Amino acid sequence: MRGTVLYGSKDIRFEDVPEPKIEKPTDAIIRLPVTCVCGSDLWSYRGIQSVTEPTPMGHEYCGYVEEVGSAVTSVKPGQFVVGSFAMSDNTCPHCQLGYQSSCQQREWVTRAQAPYMRVALADGTLVSTSDSPSDGMLPSLLAASDVLGTGWFAADAANVKKGSTVVVVGDGAVGLLGVLSAKQMGAERIIAMSGHATRQKLAREFGATDIVTERGIEGIARIKELTKGVGADSVLECVGTQEAMEQAIQSTRPGGFVSYVGVPHGVQFDGQPLFFSHVHLHGGPAPVRRYLPRLMDLILNGRIQPGKVFDLELPLEKVAEGYAAMDDRRAIKTLLRP
Amino acid sequence: MRGTVLYGSKDIRFEDVPEPKIEKPTDAIIRLPVTCVCGSDLWSYRGIQSVTEPTPMGHEYCGYVEEVGSAVTSVKPGQFVVGSFAMSDNTCPHCQLGYQSSCQQREWVTRAQAPYMRVALADGTLVSTSDSPSDGMLPSLLAASDVLGTGWFAADAANVKKGSTVVVVGDGAVGLLGVLSAKQMGAERIIAMSGHATRQKLAREFGATDIVTERGIEGIARIKELTKGVGADSVLECVGTQEAMEQAIQSTRPGGFVSYVGVPHGVQFDGQPLFFSHVHLHGGPAPVRRYLPRLMDLILNGRIQPGKVFDLELPLEKVAEGYAAMDDRRAIKTLLRP
Repeated sequence: MRGTVLYGSKDIRFEDVPEPKIEKPTDAIIRLPVTCVCGSDLWSYRGIQSVTEPTPMGHEYCGYVEEVGSAVTSVKPGQFVVGSFAMSDNTCPHCQLGYQSSCQQREWVTRAQAPYMRVALADGTLVSTSDSPSDGMLPSLLAASDVLGTGWFAADAANVKKGSTVVVVGDGAVGLLGVLSAKQMGAERIIAMSGHATRQKLAREFGATDIVTERGIEGIARIKELTKGVGADSVLECVGTQEAMEQAIQSTRPGGFVSYVGVPHGVQFDGQPLFFSHVHLHGGPAPVRRYLPRLMDLILNGRIQPGKVFDLELPLEKVAEGYAAMDDRRAIKTLLRP
Repeated sequence: MRGTVLYGSKDIRFEDVPEPKIEKPTDAIIRLPVTCVCGSDLWSYRGIQSVTEPTPMGHEYCGYVEEVGSAVTSVKPGQFVVGSFAMSDNTCPHCQLGYQSSCQQREWVTRAQAPYMRVALADGTLVSTSDSPSDGMLPSLLAASDVLGTGWFAADAANVKKGSTVVVVGDGAVGLLGVLSAKQMGAERIIAMSGHATRQKLAREFGATDIVTERGIEGIARIKELTKGVGADSVLECVGTQEAMEQAIQSTRPGGFVSYVGVPHGVQFDGQPLFFSHVHLHGGPAPVRRYLPRLMDLILNGRIQPGKVFDLELPLEKVAEGYAAMDDRRAIKTLLRP
């Protein structure tokens, strides 16, 4: 089969790769009717994270079970499933406490921009639907596997509650779905920070009540102004840069909550200002598995349409163009059809 | 009157200072039957925090109201009161949300190692007792004004609950009272990290179930061993150094909570390891005022004896010896009698 491989900065190739096979009795092979490019794929695509060897890409997935290993009991061929980018046994102490993305047996998904993939720890990782979903549901179910689950974790980790004032830093798919998640959790005011018209529009559609276009010091001043000098209860940092993190911390009221869900690149926290900011800080790779059953229900019941973040659709063989469009910010997120 | 002034590294003097006076209608003057030296006073005493001019010292206090400004309504002369090192109006948005140590009108106490002091924002800052406490209660009530309130915040900020496994990094008065606080909050297991016999004994008395004498990497390994490889639910970082903070973060399970309550000195957090540690982080100057009424009740009802952290008592004029004894770790905490 052919799959996606990154050779170096801006060098994405769609080329022959080995067919996935059952390697352990706990594995499953799934066929992917859709796949996609993640904002986090851009760190290595842009060369910010170095690529030392040809690297298979893709970690978001949903699809049909083709084959399962002999130890797999919870899913069977033909079923439709969604999983997380962090494969987990869902039974270890960390999983049981809801941190499946720190599972003691965790493995990271790496080859999902392809027609088929292998899922390790299939019983712990995959959640099946009772019926095959319609084609129209696929983008939203695919979003659940990472960007929705991550946006949801961002809102949860930032303690968003009924009545909260929330700020979302970052207008990528995760930030936009952080807006959607905050809305679902009952936030009263959701301030999206975005200078990009298409993204502002989607943020409003997902529940943003205010848009702040300023960044850095001006952005912080604007948040303070909008919150009568107090700062926000909850701030979701959905970028992963120093600038975004400082903007997040300084937009939060003392005792408020900052979450961060994108792998930090070059982010340093200085102890004293963080101490005196009085914020709560929590983040990490989102434990998407914890939220999947609920998120899939919300999608299948038509309550949320996270798939709207896909504003470009291409055949999988055009994956390189999918990356380029996101890199140029021409697309929020690219859906690929194998 | 005579009070305590720090001139430079290890240069504490007890000398003539101005009598405190009512400066604003919201002030009160109180007479201090006892006062004390704080572990945090040692940062400047040791020259780690530079002293550029003669600095009046002391921020822990309880005592009798001598005089109040014309706007003060909640306390009156003759009453016994306890306050926090952070003076606060207790009415601003931050105060109302329980972060009085980030009050919009906050002022820091600075002259409490003296026979009398001025308290700003007296109505918001001071909590009175219904009767004059016995002399035996004074050390515990004095502890409530900072080290107990700070240890309590450390346990609360680290989400200590019934059944929690807790680690306390730091065996100073705050760490020891973090142990006491965790015990009050129902922790099942409390591991105190201390290599000092006197402090280990008091930690046990306050509720520690285990003592770990190792530090750094060995200390972390020992905590992992004691928690079956999982890590602790809650870790209280009660020191303020890089070593203590790393020990705290690495002793915590993914999804667990790290609190930090000593002003960080030279502490830097690197974004990526913090992200993948998956911990919650919260700290800052303890909002002691939030907890004071409850802590004073616990003390006055004989439920807790935080005053046991005072293992050296001196007349106030010997304050320099009180600092030296704590600096040498000959004393946990020095009580001073004006």
